[in-house]
Amino acid sequence: MVGGGRGAFIGSIHRIAAAMDGQIELVCGAFSSDPERAKDSGADLFLPADRCYGSYGEMIESEAKRPVEERFDFLSVVTPNHMHFPPAKMALEHGFHVLSDKPATFNLAEAKELSGLVEKSQLLYGLTHNYTGYPLVKQAREMVAGGVLGKIRKVVVEYPQGWLSTHLEASGQKQAAWRTDPKRSGAAGCIGDIGTHAENLAEYVTGLEIEELAADLTAFVEGRELDDDGNVLLRFKGGAKGVLHASQISAGEENNLSLRVYGEKGGMEWHQREPNTLLVKWLDQPMQVYRTANGYLGAAALAAGRTPPSHPEGYLEAFANVYKNFAGAIRARLENRLPTAIENDYPKISDGVRGMAFIEAVVASSKANAAWTKLDI
Amino acid sequence: MVGGGRGAFIGSIHRIAAAMDGQIELVCGAFSSDPERAKDSGADLFLPADRCYGSYGEMIESEAKRPVEERFDFLSVVTPNHMHFPPAKMALEHGFHVLSDKPATFNLAEAKELSGLVEKSQLLYGLTHNYTGYPLVKQAREMVAGGVLGKIRKVVVEYPQGWLSTHLEASGQKQAAWRTDPKRSGAAGCIGDIGTHAENLAEYVTGLEIEELAADLTAFVEGRELDDDGNVLLRFKGGAKGVLHASQISAGEENNLSLRVYGEKGGMEWHQREPNTLLVKWLDQPMQVYRTANGYLGAAALAAGRTPPSHPEGYLEAFANVYKNFAGAIRARLENRLPTAIENDYPKISDGVRGMAFIEAVVASSKANAAWTKLDI
Amino acid sequence: MVGGGRGAFIGSIHRIAAAMDGQIELVCGAFSSDPERAKDSGADLFLPADRCYGSYGEMIESEAKRPVEERFDFLSVVTPNHMHFPPAKMALEHGFHVLSDKPATFNLAEAKELSGLVEKSQLLYGLTHNYTGYPLVKQAREMVAGGVLGKIRKVVVEYPQGWLSTHLEASGQKQAAWRTDPKRSGAAGCIGDIGTHAENLAEYVTGLEIEELAADLTAFVEGRELDDDGNVLLRFKGGAKGVLHASQISAGEENNLSLRVYGEKGGMEWHQREPNTLLVKWLDQPMQVYRTANGYLGAAALAAGRTPPSHPEGYLEAFANVYKNFAGAIRARLENRLPTAIENDYPKISDGVRGMAFIEAVVASSKANAAWTKLDI
Amino acid sequence: MVGGGRGAFIGSIHRIAAAMDGQIELVCGAFSSDPERAKDSGADLFLPADRCYGSYGEMIESEAKRPVEERFDFLSVVTPNHMHFPPAKMALEHGFHVLSDKPATFNLAEAKELSGLVEKSQLLYGLTHNYTGYPLVKQAREMVAGGVLGKIRKVVVEYPQGWLSTHLEASGQKQAAWRTDPKRSGAAGCIGDIGTHAENLAEYVTGLEIEELAADLTAFVEGRELDDDGNVLLRFKGGAKGVLHASQISAGEENNLSLRVYGEKGGMEWHQREPNTLLVKWLDQPMQVYRTANGYLGAAALAAGRTPPSHPEGYLEAFANVYKNFAGAIRARLENRLPTAIENDYPKISDGVRGMAFIEAVVASSKANAAWTKLDI
Repeated sequence: MVGGGRGAFIGSIHRIAAAMDGQIELVCGAFSSDPERAKDSGADLFLPADRCYGSYGEMIESEAKRPVEERFDFLSVVTPNHMHFPPAKMALEHGFHVLSDKPATFNLAEAKELSGLVEKSQLLYGLTHNYTGYPLVKQAREMVAGGVLGKIRKVVVEYPQGWLSTHLEASGQKQAAWRTDPKRSGAAGCIGDIGTHAENLAEYVTGLEIEELAADLTAFVEGRELDDDGNVLLRFKGGAKGVLHASQISAGEENNLSLRVYGEKGGMEWHQREPNTLLVKWLDQPMQVYRTANGYLGAAALAAGRTPPSHPEGYLEAFANVYKNFAGAIRARLENRLPTAIENDYPKISDGVRGMAFIEAVVASSKANAAWTKLDI
Repeated sequence: MVGGGRGAFIGSIHRIAAAMDGQIELVCGAFSSDPERAKDSGADLFLPADRCYGSYGEMIESEAKRPVEERFDFLSVVTPNHMHFPPAKMALEHGFHVLSDKPATFNLAEAKELSGLVEKSQLLYGLTHNYTGYPLVKQAREMVAGGVLGKIRKVVVEYPQGWLSTHLEASGQKQAAWRTDPKRSGAAGCIGDIGTHAENLAEYVTGLEIEELAADLTAFVEGRELDDDGNVLLRFKGGAKGVLHASQISAGEENNLSLRVYGEKGGMEWHQREPNTLLVKWLDQPMQVYRTANGYLGAAALAAGRTPPSHPEGYLEAFANVYKNFAGAIRARLENRLPTAIENDYPKISDGVRGMAFIEAVVASSKANAAWTKLDI
Repeated sequence: MVGGGRGAFIGSIHRIAAAMDGQIELVCGAFSSDPERAKDSGADLFLPADRCYGSYGEMIESEAKRPVEERFDFLSVVTPNHMHFPPAKMALEHGFHVLSDKPATFNLAEAKELSGLVEKSQLLYGLTHNYTGYPLVKQAREMVAGGVLGKIRKVVVEYPQGWLSTHLEASGQKQAAWRTDPKRSGAAGCIGDIGTHAENLAEYVTGLEIEELAADLTAFVEGRELDDDGNVLLRFKGGAKGVLHASQISAGEENNLSLRVYGEKGGMEWHQREPNTLLVKWLDQPMQVYRTANGYLGAAALAAGRTPPSHPEGYLEAFANVYKNFAGAIRARLENRLPTAIENDYPKISDGVRGMAFIEAVVASSKANAAWTKLDI
Repeated sequence: MVGGGRGAFIGSIHRIAAAMDGQIELVCGAFSSDPERAKDSGADLFLPADRCYGSYGEMIESEAKRPVEERFDFLSVVTPNHMHFPPAKMALEHGFHVLSDKPATFNLAEAKELSGLVEKSQLLYGLTHNYTGYPLVKQAREMVAGGVLGKIRKVVVEYPQGWLSTHLEASGQKQAAWRTDPKRSGAAGCIGDIGTHAENLAEYVTGLEIEELAADLTAFVEGRELDDDGNVLLRFKGGAKGVLHASQISAGEENNLSLRVYGEKGGMEWHQREPNTLLVKWLDQPMQVYRTANGYLGAAALAAGRTPPSHPEGYLEAFANVYKNFAGAIRARLENRLPTAIENDYPKISDGVRGMAFIEAVVASSKANAAWTKLDI
């Protein structure tokens, strides 16, 4: 693991997620750019001192020298955005699989380079677009793919938060500080942090690709350099239309990622706030309420659950599903077989490239007063 | 009443709404352009035959000749859109107040002419943007005006329906037929029918005016001439941003008009589906759930209720509140006094002009590939 | 109308409900036992002075002397409980139909006497158990009757309120005062006021009769003479079991009447708070959400709606449905035909007798420390 | 770990919960009474073969002979009910702490004996009444204890399920088979399996003890020996009243454990279905919606969360909180200090005794036709 030392938020999320199914063991880490903090963080995690490294470079080089059975199997990247690409690149170059926090890189150029490296190395690369790990998100995808809703016409996806309603970064709050800093976060703020989750969720469920978009970004809080709110019109390949809006100044909202998809025959609605419910709507019949873990669900949704119906599965379990499937894909590799459909169901570098293209298109469109802008894939 | 004969939908809604508080009596009508149907409809309503007219022209002229105490007090216009302006104009010219279904007219030019007539005549003109009649919509408006949310930054308003997901108008269904016909509905379909409700609701609650917009309209159903779906980026005077989307092809949706408003200090959320609940969200405190008829509500909301808490008030009661306040304003006139704030709280011709300007701006923007377009007021 | 003068709550509800469909006109009234208030209340309602009576006795006698076409058609009784029986009895004895607020009478003996009078007179008697007027309550009843849920096993019905959490009656609040006064309310407080609604709703929907019950009543607020809370175990004829609880000290609750019914094949859930939704649950399929006014509903539910889907129907419309059907039954009588199934769908004296038997059984059981007690029908 | 081999449900839940925070490692197990299955299950979990035992007796004896640092620290008991007591007893007698699935034992006599053993040994004993591990359940408890609701008057707790609506045990389904078998489940079916969870939740949140109860149990499904449904009137020490109902034949229900508590000043409502929401209701103010992980929560609720607001915490996290706190209490013991309030917040043998007393009182009351029966503590 790179990053995720004491005081970080997402690092412990990744560790819980990785450990959940008893298939992945944390064996080494470069948890902080501060060597002292790196060692202490490792000790907190019961790691031997000699596998707590001072930098990702040292870690990758050292581990690569160990016998194959004693190396780590894949690198988990949980640093801020600007530090996603360098360790991922180095790991691939040293023959390690990579699972990275999103967005894949700092900008689109890096993402395309990374995509090339993945292809060339034939190693596995996963991306923690964790919301796609929810069982009912997988159910929605399967139902859309199966034609249950008919041809898709409209998509509404949104991710309102309110935690940056004030100038929180001025207080030194660590999460706010790097996310609002163009040097660490990238070209976009809110759109990069959570807008990409919305984009990925919409494309994952519908199987459609955003072709072009018209975006209006705003930094509402005085003194903030990056957008904290964005409203985007979407046009998908094939004719579907949509709206995406994301915000970090929607005062009082938590993490209300939600998705609605409408086709010729029916519609669907899913909210992260209550992730174990999927509403399925029909033209002439009562709405149905699909619930996690019930026998009427499809294979992907059932495989993604760990508990019986109405034992709520949460965010950590969804996150763990990305790790579980990715670990399954590595195991398939070790066992010289193709991964199963379920093992292969995790976000890949292609999702990473699309995410970065989305961010850059949104920023470009907004600078051009919401001119229609195509994703540069 | 003009329109609303046998087989019409909105006519009976208007009649129930008007009668609800025992202050308004239906005394005459021109219920249909078909004279037979007009008479029969009047008989259904226990009206004397001599006050069931064959046309609105005949009705207005005949009634104007009756002694003042025996005339109708105001004209209720419940015809399809293209027939809103002519009877309203004639009534004003003959000295009658007018309460009209929305949109005010067929196009913006007519709306401006009507506005001039209202001003010149000094008569009262009301518009049934009925959703503003809900008690908690009034509460939201009062709280925003009182600064409870701080300066408004973002508005999300939406009105998804699914009933036109198929080519229903081809079946001869009356409601679908006129709404999808440019000759009777106007320049817009979905946007004119329900998008204007969304626009009006957003402006009513926030007290803000939409300055410019960028719109993407679509007619998804083959053979349909007018839009059945629209996504719109909004910019309000003063800097707030927003999204408005309306749809009649969101398969499985009923009439899910909803509004979210976010300011510097808090947010609000209201859904027509459950109109007696207003969610009020805070930066650092638990969300509050305001409910109709409770003592903690403000004057406008309390005046708009008829039953104790959790005796759900519905659509008809909200509709009736437009009538009630309008009738109060007429009574104030009869009593030679100014209307109270509550009596004066009904949509007026200025709302009608704004609504028509909104429709025309949306259509123009969409034709220009979602170019930013200002409302022409 | 008897009762319902200035300051009363339920009187205006009855008047709105009666007037809603344009089929019933208020023609006379004895609105208060205070003659001045009676006259003033009548004037408020635009009634001629000569039909505003000082007492129900005077009204019934006077009206009975008028020509048949000029009399009122039925008497609406909206007084406190102790004054339900006397005017109802007198009206029946003078040949008038009666529609009464619930409970039917002050005690079971009166109810049985009233039942005899109704039978003997062959006049119509209706009771405003208004919650059975909701479209989806009718849908639930129809589905249960049609065997959709299989044989019913369990019923959970509840009616929590919180408005009597304090000693409100000591403040002189009129609604609290008579409801907590054994002389005006009867043998029970909370159970008589709202517990009977719960009992009636459960029996209406399931078509089952409560056979015996075990009840634990409490008066939590110091100084209160009648129960303000009651928990009841139910056993229905045929073997179903259930729980009924009602409360007026469930602090913070509004009028959360709700019903759940479970059979061998499925279950149902309905809440007055959101009355346009009926949840239908299945053993092996996703839950369905039935909504008012949709085409998939049965005849009774569709006849009980006035607006399209998702235009929320509220409490007043449900109340009006009792009046509408009762008026239809009177019309059928006038037209010398049998009422339709829908016209005949209103609570009758048999429901009134059952309600009074329920109240007396609950009180007796509670006095016997929750001993099982049969309803004395 | 005792029990929880291949095919078991609750075993894997315990393992995920135990491992979640990286503080507890599974080191040995007696996973099945079938030796082959026991070994295979251990191999699945990457355990060395010499610590996969054929029986709990062998395991406890073998481990007790190992050096102190190489023994397991505490025994986790995840067997069916009739096998809870024997391994727990033996472990305590050999100096091991115990964390057991609920109910604590097969009957009340065993529970009392176990309580004596715990006291005598001065070892730690925990019980996985996992629902008390939810952050907002802890918040509710803290608020009630702080007097926020005033003196508690009424409690409504329920746990409806529908999965035993058919004669599932006849199909050989393992979970159904032992739960409906008096020899393995105990004196009660539904009441023992889930009614005790409801009882524990109500007592945990309110801090009140059930004094006596009146219960009506039923076995609705033909051929079933134990209750599959129970309705219970409750009286708490100090005067509060309540209702508890639990069911496994409420067709279409999942695991809808819910709790409502009403005091003199306010009320609360919590549902396991949406466990990150706690509704707090007031006499004269809008209802508040408390949500997991927000800064306004108390210490216990905040300590029980792992993710930011609106990243839903689920069943596994709640379960893990029992393990986490129990592990903290063991650590405190190892560190020769008193546990913190949070470490000490896990269900103990006293809860186990109360649970068994509750079960026996319910069964006795039901046999006596719902006679009031005191808990025999």
